[in-house]
Amino acid sequence: MAAIETGTILVGQKPVANYVLAAVTQFTMGSKRVIFKARGRSISKAVDAAEIVRRFMEGKVDITSVKIGSEKVGEPGKERVVSTIEIVLEKKE
Amino acid sequence: MAAIETGTILVGQKPVANYVLAAVTQFTMGSKRVIFKARGRSISKAVDAAEIVRRFMEGKVDITSVKIGSEKVGEPGKERVVSTIEIVLEKKE
Repeated sequence: MAAIETGTILVGQKPVANYVLAAVTQFTMGSKRVIFKARGRSISKAVDAAEIVRRFMEGKVDITSVKIGSEKVGEPGKERVVSTIEIVLEKKE
Repeated sequence: MAAIETGTILVGQKPVANYVLAAVTQFTMGSKRVIFKARGRSISKAVDAAEIVRRFMEGKVDITSVKIGSEKVGEPGKERVVSTIEIVLEKKE
């Protein structure tokens, strides 16, 4: 497995520890940036995961950006709007 | 009721519409800034509320800042850490 410059992790139904581990692994493998993305109910979990990673790697990783937005999901005619979040964690130099 | 420069709304157990209405009311009364704050599971709801207000007042209100953090809650000895979010909405001039 080669180091990826930026890793994107989609936060969904799995336990929060899975996403934390995925992010820590990516940083350990040499990634400079990890982005957590989530929609709807999973937003709280993405914030939890990002905060746990930040505290766990205190001094080594910073949350550099948090963005929220909306997205249309579902088939045409049955579309609904869900909220989204994108949290960027970056390794300090 | 006088206009408050900055209104802070704590997002908790109530339906999302209550928080949306509270924010829209504050802006309508003349507030320049409304801050949604939430902890734990309510974080998703705060993002929903902020996005609904932004879309509802499209062109008049912007999300200017989103911050996440951690807080210790509970009595001494039984403390646990919860994630927090703070979303700032501001009226455009």
